[in-house]
Amino acid sequence: MLIVFDLVGIFFFAVAGSLMAARRGFDILGSLFLGGVTGLGGGVVRDLILNESPATFAHPIYFAPPVLAALLVYGFTPAIQKLHRLVLVFDAAGLGLFCVTGTMKALQHNFNPVTAVLLGVISGVGGGLLRDVISNVTPDLFNPRDIYAIAAMFGGTLTAVFWSLEIFNPVVVVAIATLTFAIRLASLKFGWRIPLAAGHWYRASPSAPPHDGPQRHF
Amino acid sequence: MLIVFDLVGIFFFAVAGSLMAARRGFDILGSLFLGGVTGLGGGVVRDLILNESPATFAHPIYFAPPVLAALLVYGFTPAIQKLHRLVLVFDAAGLGLFCVTGTMKALQHNFNPVTAVLLGVISGVGGGLLRDVISNVTPDLFNPRDIYAIAAMFGGTLTAVFWSLEIFNPVVVVAIATLTFAIRLASLKFGWRIPLAAGHWYRASPSAPPHDGPQRHF
Amino acid sequence: MLIVFDLVGIFFFAVAGSLMAARRGFDILGSLFLGGVTGLGGGVVRDLILNESPATFAHPIYFAPPVLAALLVYGFTPAIQKLHRLVLVFDAAGLGLFCVTGTMKALQHNFNPVTAVLLGVISGVGGGLLRDVISNVTPDLFNPRDIYAIAAMFGGTLTAVFWSLEIFNPVVVVAIATLTFAIRLASLKFGWRIPLAAGHWYRASPSAPPHDGPQRHF
Repeated sequence: MLIVFDLVGIFFFAVAGSLMAARRGFDILGSLFLGGVTGLGGGVVRDLILNESPATFAHPIYFAPPVLAALLVYGFTPAIQKLHRLVLVFDAAGLGLFCVTGTMKALQHNFNPVTAVLLGVISGVGGGLLRDVISNVTPDLFNPRDIYAIAAMFGGTLTAVFWSLEIFNPVVVVAIATLTFAIRLASLKFGWRIPLAAGHWYRASPSAPPHDGPQRHF
Repeated sequence: MLIVFDLVGIFFFAVAGSLMAARRGFDILGSLFLGGVTGLGGGVVRDLILNESPATFAHPIYFAPPVLAALLVYGFTPAIQKLHRLVLVFDAAGLGLFCVTGTMKALQHNFNPVTAVLLGVISGVGGGLLRDVISNVTPDLFNPRDIYAIAAMFGGTLTAVFWSLEIFNPVVVVAIATLTFAIRLASLKFGWRIPLAAGHWYRASPSAPPHDGPQRHF
Repeated sequence: MLIVFDLVGIFFFAVAGSLMAARRGFDILGSLFLGGVTGLGGGVVRDLILNESPATFAHPIYFAPPVLAALLVYGFTPAIQKLHRLVLVFDAAGLGLFCVTGTMKALQHNFNPVTAVLLGVISGVGGGLLRDVISNVTPDLFNPRDIYAIAAMFGGTLTAVFWSLEIFNPVVVVAIATLTFAIRLASLKFGWRIPLAAGHWYRASPSAPPHDGPQRHF
């Protein structure tokens, strides 16, 4: 079961990576590579931390989603104005699935719930972070105009709760992933935010250096 | 003993990371994340190279310093003009402690002294490097207007010397870390430098592309 | 045999890294560090994926090439106008050797040929990618005006073919590496390209955001 959800999550992230490559004007191999890093990066980091040989390299099937994503983006890229919005939607879908599967995998390795949720968050945000770092842009993760990691935390925590209640089946996985996805998209649409890193001075100094990331897109 | 010094070093680096997040206008979770990566990144890289499961994920206590740092920065952020200087001071304090503890840990694993010092330097500069790469700025490590890695090398070498003399106790650790910290700060204040990467042409061509990092801050 | 080729490849990549440091105006330790990351990064990532303790830290000889490269660049840096071109030439030489040795090492670990070629490509492009990410520039890997990863794929595939034919000796290694090097340089000189990530819209919208990397240099 874990593998199917993993593959779907990898596909969503890979599409986000390939769309980012299209937006930056990279070529099709760059698209495949960036999609692969986005889709597989979070899981590889998670497995290195669990001190396992990454599952990715043992099962070649893991490379199918990035190939499919690069071909789809090559064939059906919409107008460039919509690209950034689409990157965000696919990224949110991958985030929803990965924070659940990452937390599950850590719980299966008998990690305590707090560390398991943290590893779920790392799996969820890791791929997109690598994508942005490699593309030389400020990571979406740090955009203060919406919420990101907190959605993954919420999904991971729900996963840990249902796991400890021993109510865990594919329906629960899909429900938690969908809820996380919806929270992330709603935060983009309605501009939900959490407090800035610095409590008091920021509001008083409108000339402070702004986040150089994108404005709201919804 | 190693754990206490590790936690203090993580705290210093985490404050540097959270202050950088405040300076860039990230939100409080971005601050926690960037502080966590800065504080824990060097140690995780060190443990992956030692082929150990990172200690960070086995002991949840390692996550306390980043949480404390993000809250402190949230509550007590000074005026923005002083932020970059504070990042540098806390970063220097972390550098001093980490180059000592990283070298010690490698020596405990029976690495030869040269490789042990190198691993100490990697532990010391790794967190700040990850912070700068993730924040999408040119790493401070490469700023040619002061010295950085050479201070860590000095601290690591002293550690290896005292270790081989079997004179090693908390006082020695604190003394070496403080000395390293002082060298780094003095280099910032007095603009100490070492030769540039290219020996002869650079001085002859003032129009060469300059380092895009910050000017002197002290 | 593998070690000699590895050291030569590390040297080529380290020169590319140190030249990049000279071009960006870093100091000599920054040059050593960037050369070391460029030369050793691909191999360390490959060994972490193979779940081995990186060979780099077991044999101090691996640190000789970066030291030599930093000294050479310090002593003999040519005029700055030629620096970017030289970075590309040494990077191509390292790419040729690493895609062969990386594929060989994975085949020795009994990976299937497809994954082995992929690991060869990762070894080949990994060092340069880390160099560009750490230097805060958009990776050369993604430059759509020439080919890069596809040359490494070609070299890795030839390696897997000759390996399965059991015709494998130093002459074959040098021949494949030279061919890969020649393909990469020819693509720079003649502007060979492959299709962009997005099939149809890109040609229709010349105002699309261009790759911010360098223009052709040959």
